Amino acid sequence: MITHPAFTVEPWAVTEDSLHLDVLAQSESVFALSNGHIGLRGNLDEGEPFGLPGTYLNGFYETRPLPYAEAGYGYPEDGQTVVNATNGKIIRLLVDDEPFDIRYGELLAHTRVLDLRAGELRREVRWRSPSGREIEVKTTRIVSFVQRSVAAIRYEVRPIDGRSLRVVAESELVANEPGSAQSGDPRAAAALRAPLQAEEQEVHDLRIVLVHRTKASGLRMAAGMDHVVETFDGLDMGAEAGPDLGRVWLTAEIAPDTPLVFTKFLAYGWSSQRSIPSVRDQVAAAVASARHTGWDALVQSQRDYLDDFWGRADVEIDGDGELQQAVRFGLFHTLQAGARAERRAIPAKGLTGSGYDGHVFWDTETFVLPVLTYTHPDAVVDALLWRHATLDLAQDRAKQLRLEGAAFPWRTIRGHECSAYWPAGTGAFHINGDIADAVIRYLRATGDEVFEAAQGLELLVNTARLWRSLGHHDHSGAFHIDGVTGPDEYSAVVDDNVYTNLMAEQNLRVAAEIASRHPDEARALGVDEEEIAAWRDAATNMHIPYDRRLAVHPQDADFTHHELMEFEGLEYPLLLHYPYFLLYSKQVCKQPDLVLAQFLRGDRFTPAQKARNFAYYEPLTVRDSSLSACVQAVAAAEVGHVELAYDYFGEAALMDLGDLEHNTRDGLHMASLAGSWLAAVAGFGGMRGFGGELSFHPRLPSALARLCFRVMYRRTCLRVTITHAEAVYELLDEGDPLTVRHQDEVVTVRFDAPVRRGWTVPDPGPEPRQPAGREPDRRRPR
Amino acid sequence: MITHPAFTVEPWAVTEDSLHLDVLAQSESVFALSNGHIGLRGNLDEGEPFGLPGTYLNGFYETRPLPYAEAGYGYPEDGQTVVNATNGKIIRLLVDDEPFDIRYGELLAHTRVLDLRAGELRREVRWRSPSGREIEVKTTRIVSFVQRSVAAIRYEVRPIDGRSLRVVAESELVANEPGSAQSGDPRAAAALRAPLQAEEQEVHDLRIVLVHRTKASGLRMAAGMDHVVETFDGLDMGAEAGPDLGRVWLTAEIAPDTPLVFTKFLAYGWSSQRSIPSVRDQVAAAVASARHTGWDALVQSQRDYLDDFWGRADVEIDGDGELQQAVRFGLFHTLQAGARAERRAIPAKGLTGSGYDGHVFWDTETFVLPVLTYTHPDAVVDALLWRHATLDLAQDRAKQLRLEGAAFPWRTIRGHECSAYWPAGTGAFHINGDIADAVIRYLRATGDEVFEAAQGLELLVNTARLWRSLGHHDHSGAFHIDGVTGPDEYSAVVDDNVYTNLMAEQNLRVAAEIASRHPDEARALGVDEEEIAAWRDAATNMHIPYDRRLAVHPQDADFTHHELMEFEGLEYPLLLHYPYFLLYSKQVCKQPDLVLAQFLRGDRFTPAQKARNFAYYEPLTVRDSSLSACVQAVAAAEVGHVELAYDYFGEAALMDLGDLEHNTRDGLHMASLAGSWLAAVAGFGGMRGFGGELSFHPRLPSALARLCFRVMYRRTCLRVTITHAEAVYELLDEGDPLTVRHQDEVVTVRFDAPVRRGWTVPDPGPEPRQPAGREPDRRRPR
Repeated sequence: MITHPAFTVEPWAVTEDSLHLDVLAQSESVFALSNGHIGLRGNLDEGEPFGLPGTYLNGFYETRPLPYAEAGYGYPEDGQTVVNATNGKIIRLLVDDEPFDIRYGELLAHTRVLDLRAGELRREVRWRSPSGREIEVKTTRIVSFVQRSVAAIRYEVRPIDGRSLRVVAESELVANEPGSAQSGDPRAAAALRAPLQAEEQEVHDLRIVLVHRTKASGLRMAAGMDHVVETFDGLDMGAEAGPDLGRVWLTAEIAPDTPLVFTKFLAYGWSSQRSIPSVRDQVAAAVASARHTGWDALVQSQRDYLDDFWGRADVEIDGDGELQQAVRFGLFHTLQAGARAERRAIPAKGLTGSGYDGHVFWDTETFVLPVLTYTHPDAVVDALLWRHATLDLAQDRAKQLRLEGAAFPWRTIRGHECSAYWPAGTGAFHINGDIADAVIRYLRATGDEVFEAAQGLELLVNTARLWRSLGHHDHSGAFHIDGVTGPDEYSAVVDDNVYTNLMAEQNLRVAAEIASRHPDEARALGVDEEEIAAWRDAATNMHIPYDRRLAVHPQDADFTHHELMEFEGLEYPLLLHYPYFLLYSKQVCKQPDLVLAQFLRGDRFTPAQKARNFAYYEPLTVRDSSLSACVQAVAAAEVGHVELAYDYFGEAALMDLGDLEHNTRDGLHMASLAGSWLAAVAGFGGMRGFGGELSFHPRLPSALARLCFRVMYRRTCLRVTITHAEAVYELLDEGDPLTVRHQDEVVTVRFDAPVRRGWTVPDPGPEPRQPAGREPDRRRPR
Repeated sequence: MITHPAFTVEPWAVTEDSLHLDVLAQSESVFALSNGHIGLRGNLDEGEPFGLPGTYLNGFYETRPLPYAEAGYGYPEDGQTVVNATNGKIIRLLVDDEPFDIRYGELLAHTRVLDLRAGELRREVRWRSPSGREIEVKTTRIVSFVQRSVAAIRYEVRPIDGRSLRVVAESELVANEPGSAQSGDPRAAAALRAPLQAEEQEVHDLRIVLVHRTKASGLRMAAGMDHVVETFDGLDMGAEAGPDLGRVWLTAEIAPDTPLVFTKFLAYGWSSQRSIPSVRDQVAAAVASARHTGWDALVQSQRDYLDDFWGRADVEIDGDGELQQAVRFGLFHTLQAGARAERRAIPAKGLTGSGYDGHVFWDTETFVLPVLTYTHPDAVVDALLWRHATLDLAQDRAKQLRLEGAAFPWRTIRGHECSAYWPAGTGAFHINGDIADAVIRYLRATGDEVFEAAQGLELLVNTARLWRSLGHHDHSGAFHIDGVTGPDEYSAVVDDNVYTNLMAEQNLRVAAEIASRHPDEARALGVDEEEIAAWRDAATNMHIPYDRRLAVHPQDADFTHHELMEFEGLEYPLLLHYPYFLLYSKQVCKQPDLVLAQFLRGDRFTPAQKARNFAYYEPLTVRDSSLSACVQAVAAAEVGHVELAYDYFGEAALMDLGDLEHNTRDGLHMASLAGSWLAAVAGFGGMRGFGGELSFHPRLPSALARLCFRVMYRRTCLRVTITHAEAVYELLDEGDPLTVRHQDEVVTVRFDAPVRRGWTVPDPGPEPRQPAGREPDRRRPR
């Protein structure tokens, strides 16, 4: 946990003004740069010290056998683990033959700034060497949103003790770099040592390209670098390469007014199929292109890209500067994770760390894609096209599991199921409903008819087939889905999980609708009227259990019959201190499950049910998952517990800036970062999109004076401003008017005619309690 | 599967009159000799060929780490695997410098006989060597029931081609012998290579002792051999030893009338604590003692022991010679597994193979101990004392699992939980109720008050505490046990499994009774009136679900709500072809669960309920477990499906003689072998012991003319003879009369006054169907 005030509060940047080695790994995650295609952890330029070195290429992984002491049918044999690829971030510096290493000598000043508008990581260091020389190093690092295989580093070093100084800068590409010890926590990634086999090295002037291949998965990658040095007299330089090392050295005598300044252009390429020359030359070309663009133009294009993004995505919060910063930090990293993933996965940690082996889970469809749907929808269709590209693997998996349609993996990089504990892996079939939900949300928000009739239809048909084969009608006709696991990982293998059943119901119903709307395309997928009727029947008869005695929806058929947990004195997180059988048989939730259902399928619950359910589950939910707080913020806001929603909003938004889960070192929690947008927009904005209608129920905690957010909907940008007095709806783009619902009223917003309305919050009754010791901190605005 | 007629049908022996190399491993299990302390597979004397070499010492194991791709709290870190100990069975023979190996030359005759009355394995071979010499080898092997660390082999070789012959016999001790490849089936044991480290070798005349220690578990063992050669002129001999080999060689010129005849005396000792000299000298002494006793006296004492056993345990069957043989075979191996285990476990495979890693499961308490309770009760108290000796480990495990009392392991050798898949391991808490059930059965059958007040009480108290902490009272006061796994391994982690709840109910109730009866001893265990009352409350309020719509007991709270399985076209065993989630969420039983409950807790079901339940579960039970057929035989007999019971009786009894589960190679199925006694005595005899009352409901299938069995009860032996005309009850010992129930009548049997009664069977209605393709073979008497 980051306990000291690590980052200063400011609206458009995250600044660390002194270096704390005890949280170095956490800051590497916070300062990670990515465009969704490549990702560089915020490791120090000089390579050491490090918390966890990390350079990630989306979809570049190694396979490893998954061990089982007792094997079972359908257990995945191989796992996939993200590889720490060739590190091009390293620029070592020798100062009068002494290595620049902040662990030695004296650190006079150390500042790092993640600039959310510029999309840069800047660093300024002042350092006195053990022998007494003082230098200043300034670096700026970007991972380009525009040129997706390119990163660049601007490096500047000068003496600050008035005397000239001999320096050697060694700019490197390092493959198979030694990693740091991984946590023993099962959630931290399995370590992989030296996964790369050298295939080729190419040196040309100051340009080096290294080609490697993973040993087991057989994926090929190339890393290239080139350098542009600002005119400098008496500069000596050279380049050399070996199997796992490319090194360019620049040596010079520098003075305070003649700093050494150069730009390092980096590029990556990788492929499972292409040849050495193909991948090598692709990277050489990308480096050449970046060099041609030049540093200044790269930086400018980065800012232009982000200006456009913030213009349609920014969330403004008046009254809590820390939250303002955190929400933008969350949006920035959400963008970084998804912007250019382009038919590759968006992992749970983005490309910021090796946690969870670099896998993608349902987090993407349920937490990250909703944000991108309303801020950067092009990234959403790319993410869904990635799922579609793995449909053949999901169909194979369904066959293996003796089911129809497609069974998407609980965790994967490439698309193969990599979950080794089936009750909380393969058993969590809701992932398929979550993918369908993301498809439906994207279609409603964009009206993308090309995707709907092609890949969208195919995804919905295949997931609907899965549900139809997984569930069954009972003697009374009710449709049940038995023996599956819902979102709450402290229950497993249950019957009629309400969340799962409601997601399946939507999936079956909308698959039937869209198949009927595109009969030719549906027929090409083998869908006939009988099958569509079977989906409609299953959806219509979907069983949603209800506990009449308690007047709440049970999380699953049996949940409310289980023993209530005694929370007093428990150790957290529970999964590290209590056996599964105990957690599974008690009324305890790791994360919202039924309460998530009544957010995502809120059209199926009355306001009174939502209030009762929230009051029932809140005292059972221990928030051992980072997927908790943002959902509880949304749910609390909906039922009117606005101050509690504000507390949860703070927790979700500060998950990584405060390292609240103690594992930010392994990478950022993309779902929670995206979730802070959900807390703002779906929580205080009360925004929903049921049935293709955009609706709002504004709320605002007393500490906030104003909340303003923008959403993209059907290619137009709507700005919503909430104050305690009113809510204002404005269109930022000329074009068709937009009809939305404000509370119970349908309103039409025109480009030049903002709509202003007062708003009310229902009386929620007394605030519920949480499990002892798991109450959220009462948020105090900063 | 053993498809050819492998064994001749005869009443008191199992004879194989020709050798089939394709089922060599199976025959090694069938011909295994053991006394429960040491076990020798029926490997050929000359060591090769073999199916699976095996020499087992009860409780002698190696540890190995259990791998988890995704670890969890409370998962056992180490497994225990039975070790193939130093092999003392080997006697190699050179015939004119050619090794005697039945794979070469020509096998003229090969007969092996397992003599169930003598307790011997005899072998006769006639062989023509590749160079044309013909010899006869006769060997007899015993593992002594009387001297528990001793085995012996009588070896005789002569030429049968009329000419004298030079032979060399090499009698060996071989440590770390090369094993054979293990099956890839998860149920077959993990192979262990070279687990023994040499510590010492001692050679003295023809006596050799080798001392070894396991590498990881640190257990020490010594194997010793000595030899007595019948007077022979011109015999040359010697002995030598290395780290993993002890060899005694005898070389002689033999003629048809001067065979080489010698006896090899073998002994084993092992310990986790004692020193090299201590274990070494123990074995040297045991060898010396056996040698002093001599072959003839050893053989005679073996027969005396078995005469006594058969006198009080034999089951006679008229009308089906194969079944007669199989039941005696089963009883013999049950005795071999338990006779001298003496405070060590009785594993699921006895000491006949390395299947299931040599682990003990609930099979022992639920299938093996009931047989021994009524035939050899001293072995039962020893087995229960072994459980008691592991109570500290079970208490530690309960603490780790955050429970009270003791949580006995699902599978183990030494007492530590070794199950790596918790839903079908740790989750199967019924093992604790099964142990309590074995305690209660033993106490009722023997009246052993010393054990009752000491270890019996402590076992019942600790298991009762487990149940009390595992379950909970609901709002209406009903006591539930949620999230556990019952006997049926095709369901897991269910609520209110009827079997588990009924076993827990008995456990809690009887613990309360016995604690009240021994207040001082109970108080010493920390039991007070409040605790006893809590046990009584839980027992009284134990929830037993009932499905009113179907008018059957559901296997657990949700079982009958699940989808019925479509059995047509399925592949068996299901666990190798279908994922767990699918099996768990369907109405399919690997083995009887509710039907086992109504056998063991038959006092809690009405005859009508039993008939309905049997009719309901029979079509759902696929018998993928060897624990199935015997229970179905008992249940079918009880409800009146006598011919079906006969079919199941045949299947249970021939499980290993016919290799019906295709894994007899890994060792015999002790539960099924014991289960053939259960089918006879509890099935056709209808014997039960509820509440301390011995009762009978005789039945007989049409093919059998007579069934006669003996049971030990309160130190007296009752013989029950059932013909189609009547049942006859006789006491074989002088002493107190015995009061039993015959059907609904209480009868008193006196030593000199047999009781004769007619019997009737209820009309069971139409015979139920089984899952398609899983009908038992209609038994035809042979």
